[in-house]
Amino acid sequence: MAQTVTPPRGMRDFLPAEKARREHALGVIRDVYRVHGFDEIETPVMEDSSRLHAGLGGDNEKLAFAVMRRGLTSDDLARAAASGDALSLADLGLRYDLTVPLARFYATHRAALPPVFRSIQIAPVWRAERPQKGRYRQFVQCDIDIIGDATSLAELELLTATLATLDALGLGGCVIRINDRRILTRLLETWQVPAGGRERALIAIDKLDKIGAEGVAAELAGLGIDRPGLAEEIAALAAADWSVGQAAPAWLDEAAFAELAALRDALPGASIAFDPTLVRGMGYYTGTIFEIAHSDFGYSLGGGGRYDRMIGRFLGSEVPACGFSIGFERIVDLLPEADAGAARSVVLVHEAGADPAGLLALKRELVADGVRVRFERRVKNTKALLDRVAADGFAEFAFVGDATRAGELEFRPLA
Amino acid sequence: MAQTVTPPRGMRDFLPAEKARREHALGVIRDVYRVHGFDEIETPVMEDSSRLHAGLGGDNEKLAFAVMRRGLTSDDLARAAASGDALSLADLGLRYDLTVPLARFYATHRAALPPVFRSIQIAPVWRAERPQKGRYRQFVQCDIDIIGDATSLAELELLTATLATLDALGLGGCVIRINDRRILTRLLETWQVPAGGRERALIAIDKLDKIGAEGVAAELAGLGIDRPGLAEEIAALAAADWSVGQAAPAWLDEAAFAELAALRDALPGASIAFDPTLVRGMGYYTGTIFEIAHSDFGYSLGGGGRYDRMIGRFLGSEVPACGFSIGFERIVDLLPEADAGAARSVVLVHEAGADPAGLLALKRELVADGVRVRFERRVKNTKALLDRVAADGFAEFAFVGDATRAGELEFRPLA
Repeated sequence: MAQTVTPPRGMRDFLPAEKARREHALGVIRDVYRVHGFDEIETPVMEDSSRLHAGLGGDNEKLAFAVMRRGLTSDDLARAAASGDALSLADLGLRYDLTVPLARFYATHRAALPPVFRSIQIAPVWRAERPQKGRYRQFVQCDIDIIGDATSLAELELLTATLATLDALGLGGCVIRINDRRILTRLLETWQVPAGGRERALIAIDKLDKIGAEGVAAELAGLGIDRPGLAEEIAALAAADWSVGQAAPAWLDEAAFAELAALRDALPGASIAFDPTLVRGMGYYTGTIFEIAHSDFGYSLGGGGRYDRMIGRFLGSEVPACGFSIGFERIVDLLPEADAGAARSVVLVHEAGADPAGLLALKRELVADGVRVRFERRVKNTKALLDRVAADGFAEFAFVGDATRAGELEFRPLA
Repeated sequence: MAQTVTPPRGMRDFLPAEKARREHALGVIRDVYRVHGFDEIETPVMEDSSRLHAGLGGDNEKLAFAVMRRGLTSDDLARAAASGDALSLADLGLRYDLTVPLARFYATHRAALPPVFRSIQIAPVWRAERPQKGRYRQFVQCDIDIIGDATSLAELELLTATLATLDALGLGGCVIRINDRRILTRLLETWQVPAGGRERALIAIDKLDKIGAEGVAAELAGLGIDRPGLAEEIAALAAADWSVGQAAPAWLDEAAFAELAALRDALPGASIAFDPTLVRGMGYYTGTIFEIAHSDFGYSLGGGGRYDRMIGRFLGSEVPACGFSIGFERIVDLLPEADAGAARSVVLVHEAGADPAGLLALKRELVADGVRVRFERRVKNTKALLDRVAADGFAEFAFVGDATRAGELEFRPLA
């Protein structure tokens, strides 16, 4: 009665090799962030449903997995049927990002945290999206956030820590594109986009990589923006290289641009590029925005920005905040093979009937020296066995035979 | 409009110090298990509802958090109201243990795993229990399991790895109590407990620590077991010290006891004690059972056993299996303080108006040497600030002042 047994739709198991690779990368990220003065926190995977649906999550709110109240009665179900409101049956939900839980965490614990709090969150989130290649319903986010610092030191610390992490992961060739929401706002004013159409105009500009300047201009025209030469103007913006001191156009928000230039100047040698067409999807950004680009990949490897009007929402006050998130699922596949970890790893091949106590004594001797040990029962096809354990990352093997002490084992290298 | 904002009922946030302590302990556990030849895997936090409610989870099935299907219509809700079956609205649920997901994982991936598979799972589980002191609705389990080995080498490897882990955590003084379900079965036969009453009889014996031999005898009497001197017999069983070769009573399952004695003999010097009254709650155990006891605590720190008829359930075949779980939430509070981690950690105290670029340059210099750096703005009450950062684990501080290079900073130790 063999049957197909799979994990839930859109979710993944991780087998040993992949799990080791992931944990290794997460360890590197955690260590670099820690040295840079950030502190790791953890929140429960669930939050109260009302907080997840308080308007801080944008479109992601619709993708939240809802957790049913326990002990629902027929009356509860009948009421929900009458109102058609299934969500009324849920009191909890799985988080769809790490920012809403951070706002809740900060409201709960502010008194116990430093005035400027630098948080690390490395944790899974869940979104009930249509599964597709590279898009999962459970995935890990690696976020750093600085709460309580309105100065550009926050942006500088975030950029420095993120670049150092990408470097430590061996991911050379990344460029961080930066922009400022205020520059985009000024641009839309110059184009005389009505206030009500700005969000949709930003969504159009955000598609530049996919649909090109002509496509963006066409979408903007559809929003009623009638401006001759708009496509050329957009193409020129995207091609501009402001880092070499190209003259700024009249519409530029000079204050915001000066701040970006100051970031660049404070990070000599860092790969940072001003991109006046960078949008970032989330509506909550209020200032600087960043995105990690890599010339080999057509998608962003992470991003973030300043969001000064969100963290304080559950407190009822405004708290400056700025964050940077690494797209863990995207980068983990790009990483070079991880180390096996233990200094030495060996496979002991034994007969099926070997005395367990004798085998254990051998293992204890080797493990005491820090050697990673796996037992394998001898099979007819020795080569297949040795190939398999080599693929599992083991470096040496020995046949146990009559050995009663580790010194009697003859270790040979695995291919 | 300050309001009380808390995590969901029965669930916890972890602030930096506690999170660091937990991650340190999990790292120790992971490393020891890995050296002992186990391989870490990961499964999604959710499983299909039908698998969680397939009868493998015992009483925990009732405690599963249910995740609602997306896109429920009024008709769906009306049908559930009519049947009174709220669970029909859920397609997924949060796992309540790591054993059901392991059985599902094994069924999915058996072809890609070694014939004897030694798994590590370190992950949270969720149970909708009534919250009480020390009992949470989200908590971490650390499980190792050996699948595919019917010999006692499995028990030996599990016991060795678990004892080594407790040792590496600095948790001396632990004793592993062992028993065998077959010994309990023979005991119940001797007492002429009818087959239908055995589960309840085991539940009564399991309470020995709490209600004493008299209490257990009374509960057994309530089940119709009429045996003169039963309380004395139970007390004698609990007090017996089989390890020193005390004569075994006639009812003992000699084969099972010989296996336990062989385990003890194969682990010279290990703290292992035979306890014929040890039960372990889960009904799926088929042979050896273990439990970690510590003389300082009135509760078990973990346990496990052999469960040969469970892992194969989703495959429709029998697969031998044996596992050991450390009760992470219970031990983490017992551990000595964790290391700060980084070799050197410093706080740089600066004026509120200091130039961010200059501050960052100092930080970059220190971080390049592996020093963990945190900025703090100068406040009137310097002592309070220094006390706080000392409590956060930092070892030195310096006032930034006019310093432009790290060499100009005068570091002083924090208390």
